[in-house]
Amino acid sequence: MSTSPEQATVVDPELATRLPELREQYAALQARGLSLDLTRGKPSAEQLDLSEPLLSLPGEGNHTSAAGTDVRNYGGLTGLPELREIFAELLGVPVEQLLAQDNASLRLMYDCVVQAMLFGVPGGEPWSATDGPITFLCPVPGYDRHFAICEELGIRMVTVPMTPDGPDAEAVAELVAEDPSVKGIWCVPTYANPDGSVVSEAVARRLVSMPTAAPDFRIFWDNAYAVHHLTEHETKSANAIDLADEAGNPDRVLMFASTSKVTFAGAGVSFLASSPANIAWFSEHLSFRSIGPDKVNQLRHALFFGDAAGVRAHMAKHRAILAPKFAAVTRILAERLGDLGVATWTDPDGGYFVSVDVVPGTASRVVELAGEAGIKLTPAGATFPYGEDPRNANIRLAPSMPPLDEVEVAMDAVATCILLAAAESA
Amino acid sequence: MSTSPEQATVVDPELATRLPELREQYAALQARGLSLDLTRGKPSAEQLDLSEPLLSLPGEGNHTSAAGTDVRNYGGLTGLPELREIFAELLGVPVEQLLAQDNASLRLMYDCVVQAMLFGVPGGEPWSATDGPITFLCPVPGYDRHFAICEELGIRMVTVPMTPDGPDAEAVAELVAEDPSVKGIWCVPTYANPDGSVVSEAVARRLVSMPTAAPDFRIFWDNAYAVHHLTEHETKSANAIDLADEAGNPDRVLMFASTSKVTFAGAGVSFLASSPANIAWFSEHLSFRSIGPDKVNQLRHALFFGDAAGVRAHMAKHRAILAPKFAAVTRILAERLGDLGVATWTDPDGGYFVSVDVVPGTASRVVELAGEAGIKLTPAGATFPYGEDPRNANIRLAPSMPPLDEVEVAMDAVATCILLAAAESA
Repeated sequence: MSTSPEQATVVDPELATRLPELREQYAALQARGLSLDLTRGKPSAEQLDLSEPLLSLPGEGNHTSAAGTDVRNYGGLTGLPELREIFAELLGVPVEQLLAQDNASLRLMYDCVVQAMLFGVPGGEPWSATDGPITFLCPVPGYDRHFAICEELGIRMVTVPMTPDGPDAEAVAELVAEDPSVKGIWCVPTYANPDGSVVSEAVARRLVSMPTAAPDFRIFWDNAYAVHHLTEHETKSANAIDLADEAGNPDRVLMFASTSKVTFAGAGVSFLASSPANIAWFSEHLSFRSIGPDKVNQLRHALFFGDAAGVRAHMAKHRAILAPKFAAVTRILAERLGDLGVATWTDPDGGYFVSVDVVPGTASRVVELAGEAGIKLTPAGATFPYGEDPRNANIRLAPSMPPLDEVEVAMDAVATCILLAAAESA
Repeated sequence: MSTSPEQATVVDPELATRLPELREQYAALQARGLSLDLTRGKPSAEQLDLSEPLLSLPGEGNHTSAAGTDVRNYGGLTGLPELREIFAELLGVPVEQLLAQDNASLRLMYDCVVQAMLFGVPGGEPWSATDGPITFLCPVPGYDRHFAICEELGIRMVTVPMTPDGPDAEAVAELVAEDPSVKGIWCVPTYANPDGSVVSEAVARRLVSMPTAAPDFRIFWDNAYAVHHLTEHETKSANAIDLADEAGNPDRVLMFASTSKVTFAGAGVSFLASSPANIAWFSEHLSFRSIGPDKVNQLRHALFFGDAAGVRAHMAKHRAILAPKFAAVTRILAERLGDLGVATWTDPDGGYFVSVDVVPGTASRVVELAGEAGIKLTPAGATFPYGEDPRNANIRLAPSMPPLDEVEVAMDAVATCILLAAAESA
């Protein structure tokens, strides 16, 4: 992180005097008739091209797994062993504790919560049988689709702050210790969406060992960006599954991952890793809704990667495309906003987002101004439950999709909007 | 149907005298050390080979939909329009009322039931909020995985008889009229699993127009074998979605289909067709668990088929492989069991199964004898809820998977087992 969020509240008092100049700049921006989009963490066409060989894999005549199974037929509920082996190594889990499924991990997360609601997790009653609503802790800023699952299923959300080492573990520990309705917490351990933080071993140890009022509390460990590095230093978040086992709470962590931003979004493979008991629990219920995943696609991916080193080499190619875009975002923010006290921002080592905190009260105005100048930004508040950022300060930028030159144009425009909104409010 | 089930109860009185001879036959059978499997409706390797070109489709550089979308990226929740068009024609529904999703239709059925439990269907309360258990009508013999979904979700099952024209509509109408806990019925309209019956227009009209005590009653119309013909005459079940609309109950029918037994099982595409209100309902909840299906696989399928005629031509190739196996089953049963009164069986015009009714009380013994002679059969009772066939008479045969010569050997063995079990019980 380049700066700490607190700095954003000290706005340069001279900014108000620049209002006419900033209005002119903004008018000129609008006159350009731009149409750019920084809303969602989508891979660019250039990144997708890296996986183009998948489109003719596994190839005719190639339909047999290493174990001799015909991947074109039914069965194999837990997923293709050779693909699970590759990702077990990358995620640091035993292959028997890793399921490979279809499409994307969002589905697996939703299914885990629904299974917990309807049937309970191992050692617990159905969450839906609890008196009153159940509660999830939501570190903020966080991922809107996590919050949407809770909203859809009537789960109460209580926010906890993010720190550069992951969720504020002391705040979490206090809440779970006293409130038995707290059944879960969302956590993106590696290069968090949106603030890029990485869960440290100390935070992970606290989360997996803290006493919980609910005996069936679960950590939804969404390791979406486990291998999505933006620097040569390949940061690893703490291995929560191992640590939970060591702490005597082996069933506390459900880890999710996918190849959505590795190969093709939606046409990839999703993964669930957890304790043997949780994997048996998920698989048992899965067997009522599926006879087996798309093993052809899993073979396709196994052949494409070869091994874990193949995945790492592939991700280095993603990095070569993405790193300059992220560098452009932080460079332009620094150049344009510098020490004016109108914003702080993250400088992540991986993942898909830059999280910007603007002058409190102005985030929605910044998004509105950008929109009217043809730059689509994620709605202000999206990184908070119910879309409500109490400080109206956080904006999530997703620079992966547009080409570099468009990222530069868009970020210059965003900087103008941040400045104008700050000046208006000064 | 070649014979009616009632005939099975008049066993030839001389059969008991053949017991020593049949025991010798069976001992000789066991001595062969066979290992054959007629348990599940799996396509054979020869059938899977028909779709082998899929394994190198869509091909490098081919990743754009007809509408210009990059199928490698996120989005497109309702599925690829060009593939939906092909199957909309085959299923006789408007393309806007057809969703294309991943993997298999079992998933879609499970999700529909779960959505109804948690959120209610359009115009209804959540089924889980009903006082006492809810009820599904289960035509028998039927599909074990339908019953398993009910069992998993705590749904009470009440059986209704099958007829050659589909479920006994009068029995169904009586039950739904008086019991508001009856929220659904399973129905396989085309070449039913296992009895091969096809729902007539008269039965469909009755089912979609009958008054129901529950305002939110739904028909789960599992059109799994819509294009799976075994004769040149391509039977069509009644178009329940159109008929429901005409009857003023447009939201009553949820139709499911897939390419599981068209291309690759599990690596295919699944479909949900229904009224605009039901499709909107399903899609809205779907949007919380998915950003979009595997559009690459949908493009792969669209390119492979070309159009609806392409699907029909492809299914004719399946027929050429399957029809001789089904002919062998019915020929051998007729030759071996003839007019002995020990069994009746279906002679389906499509689908994947032959349903055999043996002497009441002996089905489980037949399966046991077959198993001990190396012929795996579906467990007796599997075609009934909770695996309990009250007459212990029905056996489901699935001849698709083994090569023709193995089907012949297996069926000769099955005939011996049916005879021996009958003689033992005489």
